[in-house]
Amino acid sequence: MKHALPVTREQDFAAWYQAVIAEADMAEDSGVRGCMVIRPWGYGVWERMQRILDDAIKATGHENVYFPLFIPLSYFEKEAEHVEGFAKEMAVVTHHRLKGDGQGRLVPDPDSKLEEPLIVRPTSETVIGTAFAKWVRSWRDLPVLINQWANVVRWEMRTRMFLRTSEFLWQEGHTVHATRDEAVAETERMLEVYRRFAEDALALPVVAGEKPENERFPGADATHSIEAMMQDGKALQAGTSHFLGQNFAEAQGIRYQDKDGGLATAWTTSWGVSTRMIGAVIMVHGDDDGLRLPPRIAPWQVVIVPMLRDDEGDAAILDYCRALADDLNGQVTLGEPIRALVDARHPKASVKRWAWVKKGAPIVLEVGGRDVAGGNVSVIRRDRLYNETGKLMSTVTARDEFAAAAPALLAEIQGALHNEARARLDAGIRLGVTDFAALQAMFADGEKNPGWAEVQWSRPTGDQLDAVVERLKAMKLTIRNAPQGQAPADGACIFTGEPAVERILVARAY
Amino acid sequence: MKHALPVTREQDFAAWYQAVIAEADMAEDSGVRGCMVIRPWGYGVWERMQRILDDAIKATGHENVYFPLFIPLSYFEKEAEHVEGFAKEMAVVTHHRLKGDGQGRLVPDPDSKLEEPLIVRPTSETVIGTAFAKWVRSWRDLPVLINQWANVVRWEMRTRMFLRTSEFLWQEGHTVHATRDEAVAETERMLEVYRRFAEDALALPVVAGEKPENERFPGADATHSIEAMMQDGKALQAGTSHFLGQNFAEAQGIRYQDKDGGLATAWTTSWGVSTRMIGAVIMVHGDDDGLRLPPRIAPWQVVIVPMLRDDEGDAAILDYCRALADDLNGQVTLGEPIRALVDARHPKASVKRWAWVKKGAPIVLEVGGRDVAGGNVSVIRRDRLYNETGKLMSTVTARDEFAAAAPALLAEIQGALHNEARARLDAGIRLGVTDFAALQAMFADGEKNPGWAEVQWSRPTGDQLDAVVERLKAMKLTIRNAPQGQAPADGACIFTGEPAVERILVARAY
Repeated sequence: MKHALPVTREQDFAAWYQAVIAEADMAEDSGVRGCMVIRPWGYGVWERMQRILDDAIKATGHENVYFPLFIPLSYFEKEAEHVEGFAKEMAVVTHHRLKGDGQGRLVPDPDSKLEEPLIVRPTSETVIGTAFAKWVRSWRDLPVLINQWANVVRWEMRTRMFLRTSEFLWQEGHTVHATRDEAVAETERMLEVYRRFAEDALALPVVAGEKPENERFPGADATHSIEAMMQDGKALQAGTSHFLGQNFAEAQGIRYQDKDGGLATAWTTSWGVSTRMIGAVIMVHGDDDGLRLPPRIAPWQVVIVPMLRDDEGDAAILDYCRALADDLNGQVTLGEPIRALVDARHPKASVKRWAWVKKGAPIVLEVGGRDVAGGNVSVIRRDRLYNETGKLMSTVTARDEFAAAAPALLAEIQGALHNEARARLDAGIRLGVTDFAALQAMFADGEKNPGWAEVQWSRPTGDQLDAVVERLKAMKLTIRNAPQGQAPADGACIFTGEPAVERILVARAY
Repeated sequence: MKHALPVTREQDFAAWYQAVIAEADMAEDSGVRGCMVIRPWGYGVWERMQRILDDAIKATGHENVYFPLFIPLSYFEKEAEHVEGFAKEMAVVTHHRLKGDGQGRLVPDPDSKLEEPLIVRPTSETVIGTAFAKWVRSWRDLPVLINQWANVVRWEMRTRMFLRTSEFLWQEGHTVHATRDEAVAETERMLEVYRRFAEDALALPVVAGEKPENERFPGADATHSIEAMMQDGKALQAGTSHFLGQNFAEAQGIRYQDKDGGLATAWTTSWGVSTRMIGAVIMVHGDDDGLRLPPRIAPWQVVIVPMLRDDEGDAAILDYCRALADDLNGQVTLGEPIRALVDARHPKASVKRWAWVKKGAPIVLEVGGRDVAGGNVSVIRRDRLYNETGKLMSTVTARDEFAAAAPALLAEIQGALHNEARARLDAGIRLGVTDFAALQAMFADGEKNPGWAEVQWSRPTGDQLDAVVERLKAMKLTIRNAPQGQAPADGACIFTGEPAVERILVARAY
């Protein structure tokens, strides 16, 4: 069976990932260090994600806002842990004007040097917290529930498209609460919003849980994540929700008058997901023919390819295709109108077919003169491209029958991709790794796809935790999270031998 | 008649503008030089604008993309006029890491100095054109029609919320075409998209036309604009569309193989509108009680204020309000479902009423126990707040009657705001200013609201144009544009005395 990509997942997973991005026209290098260009198909997926997640964020009572790109350096000095975590990788603006150097080149004008350098936001707790301190006066002002869609910059030495880029797009939610309990509940509520978004919209099975202390967001009291399993068995953190305790509120002076007239310090949270999610979708759903998009986030769900011959029959074929697209677009699936496109742009039908297969359009229809005459369409399902003998499946179906079944078919494809990924995740988590030697054997060199290990631990802290992290690091492993709703620990800690208190997932990760 | 704002338009238009922004919770100072915080109500208006304009941009065949925030300095050196126009006001990133200075403060780490400084994009022709040069190979690749929603930075010395901020949000369209005619047609098409968006969505009457040579975008062969008239008679450029000729294509090497196999240089355009539009909406539709929002861009079109008394009757009032909101939200007006909100948050109904009046919600409903008993609502129309005697108009209306009439009423308010602004624009353009002395008299000191002058000119160039610009500048005047569809010139140029070739609008401007 010949595939549409120059490299398979089996041959070289990293090269395959880059090939999908290139062949599906998702993104490309920009020529600007560490930054990518998100092309229309990639950005279209992001727009679908934004729309769905934004609705969910608003449905839980949050409002969108916009805060400045630049943060004065001094804002970072207030929360010590926070700056420690971020100071190593921030873009610093020092001048506000250019001038000629007299030799035809431009240089920063020394006269325009800023008194205080500005940081391009790596995340916005510091600048948003400063506003919170002004906004919050009384218990009546609480909770404050806001979110912003923005670009952020973290200087990265080794970059990888969508997964790790110096600039990326994300949403960051920030909230203020009167009590610890309310802030904790908010942290958990938004983690659940992310979990459902991943599962329902992206068909991405994830494990939600709390990160270990060493993996917390700088300045947080607790960090929760959703973790997805890529097809090479590595983990990818697909979203995080932070309980910030009173750390930022104290540093920034977010205080309120409580019902008894006393002055109380508030509690804050923050939470975010980014364009990284697109990388997860590629590595979970892609195959050796390119991307496979869950219908809910496919910019076009049904692409109709007219097989034109440059003769007088073309007009009838095009009319037939357009009428079918109109029929489809008038129907609803997965809560929204179907998105069907007639691709009449390029000349060769087979080129178009493979272009849309590589882009991952859930359904590709081909329509030639014979289909028009017979009232049919040839249906290609992206999630089931080949039959058992490795032959491309293009099923001739009565046009009206297809149109009537299209909403259910798209919903079925959404479910099929989710089921496939769910089965892989479930099979990929190895239970019963009860001692460190077993963990070492599982992740021995040469194991191509070891998956994740669920192990029990005593939740060590301080130096003892550092030692655990170092032992794992030597094996290129990290602790992903302690899954929600887990069975009680009943064994010994595989690191310390002490009685275990919880189960954690250990894995290689992106 | 007492008004909700501390200052009226008549007393101090600039202070009134700031008061509307503050009292309507649109935006606030961020503490970061030249940057503002866009608060939920202001950002909600921007989201409405984005949704409507984005649909129009897509309906004309454009796709969204995302390009990097940072542009290497050398990219700016390619197009000489362009860099000349922008070099004076750009944020320059020179370092990518901070370090402690040993005294508890952070400073840019000298070891992290960039070899080539990065510019925070003031506009993206240079970086997008670099990608175009890769994307465009053959005539089959043309046209390329893309757009991005992004933040941009232009260092501004004197800033004013929404109108002129160092960072602002906008969309920038960029296109490549095979021929001059197609690029010119695109420039005009997008100007028309902007004109219709302003008139239909923002209820903002504008004059579309071509800017004079001295007001062109740096590097453009022609710049077109839509100009709106504020209530103080000043002009505000609300959107621009640029025909870039082959200037950028030549500088960046955007070439394609034409149908005959030859190599041809392409033609490009760019066009944009920004958060500035929000400033225009405020200054066109606001009154002495705050903002008045056209229903199409109001985050909430109908706000229902329950008049609660903290007793057992409250539950019935709330139920009544929520059922009404459900009824309204199930109906469609102006092409979309109605957006109705029950504001049950704060205790005092009168405070809520005035908060929503200041925010400019098109319709505010008050519902007390007596209304529930009688099956009524008290209706306040934001566009007709007072009767002839200066008394607040709150009209008791049968609830079912109101609900049935709401779609038409919202459409009527949209039209009424547009008509009012249209009449003001038409009345504010003075025709028949046939000599320079008349222009001087019109804009004499002390004339509070002179409006705009339509004058005829010979379209001078070079030094002669410079002299005209200087004479106007001395009177704080600028040429706005040469309106589309104007009557043929039939007089003498008021600047040169030569036979006129076109009519132009002269005005003070933001």
